[in-house]
Amino acid sequence: MGTKTLLLLIVCVGILQATAMAQTQKDTDTKMRGEKEEAVAEAIIRQRVEECAKPVGAKDIDRIMSLCVPNIVSFDLNPPLRYAGTDNKRRAWQEFFAIYTGPVAYEVRDLNITTDGELAFVQSLNHVKGTLASGHITDLWVRWTACFRRIDGVWLVVHDHVSVPADLEHGQAVLNLTP
Amino acid sequence: MGTKTLLLLIVCVGILQATAMAQTQKDTDTKMRGEKEEAVAEAIIRQRVEECAKPVGAKDIDRIMSLCVPNIVSFDLNPPLRYAGTDNKRRAWQEFFAIYTGPVAYEVRDLNITTDGELAFVQSLNHVKGTLASGHITDLWVRWTACFRRIDGVWLVVHDHVSVPADLEHGQAVLNLTP
Repeated sequence: MGTKTLLLLIVCVGILQATAMAQTQKDTDTKMRGEKEEAVAEAIIRQRVEECAKPVGAKDIDRIMSLCVPNIVSFDLNPPLRYAGTDNKRRAWQEFFAIYTGPVAYEVRDLNITTDGELAFVQSLNHVKGTLASGHITDLWVRWTACFRRIDGVWLVVHDHVSVPADLEHGQAVLNLTP
Repeated sequence: MGTKTLLLLIVCVGILQATAMAQTQKDTDTKMRGEKEEAVAEAIIRQRVEECAKPVGAKDIDRIMSLCVPNIVSFDLNPPLRYAGTDNKRRAWQEFFAIYTGPVAYEVRDLNITTDGELAFVQSLNHVKGTLASGHITDLWVRWTACFRRIDGVWLVVHDHVSVPADLEHGQAVLNLTP
């Protein structure tokens, strides 16, 4: 084998080795990026939930709605069974806020976040305090589940569910439970 | 350049081209597999939901529990606010079934499935019909949200939320709503 041939062989083997190493590095990077992305996503969603909670206290419906997809499906605290789309969900908030004469105190507790890829779901127990138009002060805990999808890099609520338990035999909403 | 060198050069370029093509093919395959996997996951989850609904009618708690992770967190129709872990969730089902003297008819309607990667969430309106121990026949619609995670290839419920809306001003559970 001539010197030129040997040199060319060394160069080619070098290129092949470099290509293989680059692929291995790429795979490792993808895995690490996956884990890091999941942690970052969880941090962003935690912040997102805070962004959801704050405007509730301030009765800022526009801000709340900006965190939802237009075709959101919502199972809300008050009837009907299901609100579909932001127009209806906006109406749900308007009705909810109309019940209260003053501001509403809203606290999210025991927030649990699960995320992978472009989806996430969260659940928490939320404390709602406020004075009804009737003068009666309500102080209740609701269960909250929210499902997020990352769309064009932004985490938005595509579905949520808020409720209190029910006493089926007596037809009562159970409003005096605490975590 | 000698014939040997030329031949070696052709072989090396061929290998490099093949490696590059294999990578492109791998990327395309990954994307197609992703889309196909999502469709397959949705079909599996739809079947999983049917598997969840059937044992409710049969009051088969073991079968229901086999579809959940051991550390499930559940916001159920009846109190308390939250059931954590299969033992407590099992108790929720026992209490629910104890209310009904006969079988329970359970129908899942308008099932909506969202899935990506290892997560999925579903929401539906479920029809529950049965005779209470008091003799009273209940016929109500509940809202159901369930969050799944694929663990070792099996889709399991990690969180679910079942409820009826509440009339806060009158403290009533609203049980007469239909979709």
